[in-house]
Amino acid sequence: MGKFILRVNMSDLSVKKEDVSEKYRVLGGRALTSTIVAAEVKPTCHPLGPHNKLVFAPGIVTGTTAPSSGRLSVGAKSPLTGTIKEANAGGIPAQKIARLGIHAIIVEGLQKEKGKFYILKLAQGTAVLEEAGQLTGKGMYETNKLIWQKYGEDIGIIGIGPAGEMKMLNAGVSCNDPENGPGRYAGRGGLGAVMGSKGLKAIIVEQKGPGDVAIANPDLFKQGQQKLAKGLADHAVTSQALPTYGTAVLVNILNEAGGLPTRNFSAGKFEGASKTGGEVINEWAKTRGGKVGHACHHGCVIKCSNVVNHPDGTYHVSPLEYETAWAFGANCEIDNLDDIAELNRICNDVGLDTIDSGGTIGVAMEAGIIPFGDGKKAIELLNEVGKGSPIGRIIGNGTAFTGKAFGVVRVPVVKGQSIPAYEPRAVKGIGVTFATATMGADHTAGYTIATEILSVGGKADPLAAAEKGALARGFQTATIFIDSTGYCLFIAFAVLDLPDAFQGMLDTVNGVLGTGYTAEDFNCLGAEWLTLERKFNEAAGFTKADDRLPEFMYYEKLPPHNHVYDVPDEVLDSVHSS
Amino acid sequence: MGKFILRVNMSDLSVKKEDVSEKYRVLGGRALTSTIVAAEVKPTCHPLGPHNKLVFAPGIVTGTTAPSSGRLSVGAKSPLTGTIKEANAGGIPAQKIARLGIHAIIVEGLQKEKGKFYILKLAQGTAVLEEAGQLTGKGMYETNKLIWQKYGEDIGIIGIGPAGEMKMLNAGVSCNDPENGPGRYAGRGGLGAVMGSKGLKAIIVEQKGPGDVAIANPDLFKQGQQKLAKGLADHAVTSQALPTYGTAVLVNILNEAGGLPTRNFSAGKFEGASKTGGEVINEWAKTRGGKVGHACHHGCVIKCSNVVNHPDGTYHVSPLEYETAWAFGANCEIDNLDDIAELNRICNDVGLDTIDSGGTIGVAMEAGIIPFGDGKKAIELLNEVGKGSPIGRIIGNGTAFTGKAFGVVRVPVVKGQSIPAYEPRAVKGIGVTFATATMGADHTAGYTIATEILSVGGKADPLAAAEKGALARGFQTATIFIDSTGYCLFIAFAVLDLPDAFQGMLDTVNGVLGTGYTAEDFNCLGAEWLTLERKFNEAAGFTKADDRLPEFMYYEKLPPHNHVYDVPDEVLDSVHSS
Repeated sequence: MGKFILRVNMSDLSVKKEDVSEKYRVLGGRALTSTIVAAEVKPTCHPLGPHNKLVFAPGIVTGTTAPSSGRLSVGAKSPLTGTIKEANAGGIPAQKIARLGIHAIIVEGLQKEKGKFYILKLAQGTAVLEEAGQLTGKGMYETNKLIWQKYGEDIGIIGIGPAGEMKMLNAGVSCNDPENGPGRYAGRGGLGAVMGSKGLKAIIVEQKGPGDVAIANPDLFKQGQQKLAKGLADHAVTSQALPTYGTAVLVNILNEAGGLPTRNFSAGKFEGASKTGGEVINEWAKTRGGKVGHACHHGCVIKCSNVVNHPDGTYHVSPLEYETAWAFGANCEIDNLDDIAELNRICNDVGLDTIDSGGTIGVAMEAGIIPFGDGKKAIELLNEVGKGSPIGRIIGNGTAFTGKAFGVVRVPVVKGQSIPAYEPRAVKGIGVTFATATMGADHTAGYTIATEILSVGGKADPLAAAEKGALARGFQTATIFIDSTGYCLFIAFAVLDLPDAFQGMLDTVNGVLGTGYTAEDFNCLGAEWLTLERKFNEAAGFTKADDRLPEFMYYEKLPPHNHVYDVPDEVLDSVHSS
Repeated sequence: MGKFILRVNMSDLSVKKEDVSEKYRVLGGRALTSTIVAAEVKPTCHPLGPHNKLVFAPGIVTGTTAPSSGRLSVGAKSPLTGTIKEANAGGIPAQKIARLGIHAIIVEGLQKEKGKFYILKLAQGTAVLEEAGQLTGKGMYETNKLIWQKYGEDIGIIGIGPAGEMKMLNAGVSCNDPENGPGRYAGRGGLGAVMGSKGLKAIIVEQKGPGDVAIANPDLFKQGQQKLAKGLADHAVTSQALPTYGTAVLVNILNEAGGLPTRNFSAGKFEGASKTGGEVINEWAKTRGGKVGHACHHGCVIKCSNVVNHPDGTYHVSPLEYETAWAFGANCEIDNLDDIAELNRICNDVGLDTIDSGGTIGVAMEAGIIPFGDGKKAIELLNEVGKGSPIGRIIGNGTAFTGKAFGVVRVPVVKGQSIPAYEPRAVKGIGVTFATATMGADHTAGYTIATEILSVGGKADPLAAAEKGALARGFQTATIFIDSTGYCLFIAFAVLDLPDAFQGMLDTVNGVLGTGYTAEDFNCLGAEWLTLERKFNEAAGFTKADDRLPEFMYYEKLPPHNHVYDVPDEVLDSVHSS
């Protein structure tokens, strides 16, 4: 069976199959969502209006047996940033969608009846829209439960919570975890609001078995798969640090480096950091139950995910990532990891991005709405979002919005999106990525932390401003390629350090597509796709004035290093023009 | 006594006199505020941060006996739009400031103690900052009253209400009326929030008598003054329509033209229009007391202002302008003029722009927060702003913000500022001004209504798209010149139709400055100053993508004419490049 594109029109509730052009055939994941959005969405359209489109695309190798390759890209014009947007997530849906032969799903138009929602049900040979009925208004835990009751548990679920239904700017798109319901979020950029604006509550995917994923050159693919798997097994980050402690291993590392943004980016070290890191999660897995080394999708060999339990040993939340532990932890001066876990759970249920939610609470604390360090009040505040109360509307619309609501000047956003977990004044290269990424402040857009903090792919002094433009550019072009393959970005740790692992990754892509991409193509294609995204943004009205960090970082020195952000504007401007 | 610039630094609470350079000497009003902002404010700075500056400047002829010339310009980078901003108002302060020899006041820095406010007290030879004390947190009526009690009633008062203190994006700057306390607002663009961010509650101006305003060529000035006064007395709009009915005479005129935006810009005619227009205000002045033909500043010969009383004959509000009658009337489907007057009074007291407040209520109605047509609920909602409740924070931050808060797509703003009182799909030229003005949607930036609806300065079919680029450009260049003289923009009705009145206006300017400006200079200087403002905006990140009307106006036909907005983008782009 050949691949096809599914075009879902919410205005007339039609679902149509379309052939895949040769141009689109060799694309997947982010390259595909961005190419479709750039081709079909007018850059100046209202992100929640009838002319935006929401695109879902598994990566190039997703659905195959390639290790750690079960990512789903979601793309649209972002209501949070106004830029082109791609966010991706693991979980169950991506592989099932790929195995149904679906190359991409394009959701367009707006459902006409206000407050009415639909689900899109996909199975072998069928794709139908059904009324969401009792799912409407439900949190994602209840939504998952109701879907399981009706369709069984071996099912892919993509959905939005109340935040998305209410079209809040910080609403994410949930994908279900292999074991734990919602939690794998394409969280950033408010894509859940786009889904909500279209009246689409959920996509459910019924599919079993290995499916029918075409591999043009099976031998090459297999060879690549083995090389990559070996690399992932050999590299200390992917084989030891991540499965043992999860991403939250970074809490203490960034704190040591003075780069853990604390109290709404007013310091780089947090007194309570050690109470909120991956070591505690690992310890709890032993004492309370729960789990470390959990795979977020079938076939993941890195297994960076975790399950965090309550003190009484009952399930609380999964996953608790570094960026979340930071966002609600150091950023809000909260050192109670149970409170952080609860804030995380609320996000998963209401359907919010954890990074922007933590950024929002931090700004609300700066505004004096609740005190820094008060986890219980933070929980109360975040619980307002799902109710849609006025304060919930403010909080649910994210960090930039909350800053404006309360006249706050120290608002850590770029292009309206919250700066995640790494203080640019202490780790200068990641600041270049935050400033210049095509979709607002996003660590996953060009993770220079690898080199600046973890000494992967070389070494660079985090406090030095020099040469950070080229570093950020290199990471951004590499990232967009990996985001297009369907591989988890974490393969980059191995791929950057081990030439064989890199070749293995390329071989699997070439094996699936029948292409002959080289290392040079890897960079060229990355640059080409970034240019496509940049052009969309330019047409939407973005200029170099938007490629800047928040003004306060240029005049406020950050303890303990007491640096301001000193990468010159010219360097930021050179990232995408060189 | 020569003129001087007063530089007030709120960080160290210093007040310094500075000489006026020759470059600045020949500027006044908007040309002066924009030139200072462009020279001293970094375009990418946070509008509420330490690097924005708030500039006050009387016009070139303000303080002289030239008719209707008592306008005060207020300028800064706008927190509402992100653009350069000038808003001007009549009232008492402008002439008194000019007569103290003050060419401009530049307020910079941020007061350090959170929640602490100051007043700047100006008198002959002195300028001091004093703690605002009990004025803090007070509405503008109470603020005026307390100042009068302490300093007497012959005093200029510039101030902000609670909205400005809370740094809300729709906070305006109040100037006091000769008779009625607050109400003359430099309302648009959130300049009140900038004043609030600096910790400046009010500026009070003690000055009596004609003062010491230098006139380089008294004979030429006198000659010009007479010509202009004659023109204003001769022209039907300035001598009859405006003093008899006030600006609200336009309600029925725009309604007849199908250009009165109704129910949040979903129709061009309002069933209840006739109950909300200037004819009713005129009638009430006879039956309830109150007043039409009220001058907003000493020496105004047009006297378009009014005083509206309660049914029992007690004072309610002044002025009730067309844009306000529309914003809370047709736009909200409210046909009870007493309710509209009360909404107006709340704005004057809390310190809000009435246009953006009406736009905000309209969008809240579209979102279903309160029903269209419910004046009492609108009053309740607007009263939340002064309390700073969460819903008040949403409403007080204006139309664009409220649209985002509730996920509304039909949000009538350009560059974040509410579209005023004239439906672009029915009056196409004003749409060009809204789209391309340097400071967001603003009818006063280039009032093509004069020609398209009132047949002043020629005639143009309002529904025709052709030739509206040149029309809007002409009005925009003329406007910035008039905004710089200190004359009320309404002199334009006479000046555009009567060559002698135009010459009179120029003569007064040349008379004061000793310049030899011709009609050609009038246009060239206007174009030059617009370019200065555009360049600021470009550096702040604005592009032609921002010079567009809201998307819905391009695909939703407006009854009764059933037009979409069809002025081509290329025409919009040509306005400032030709």
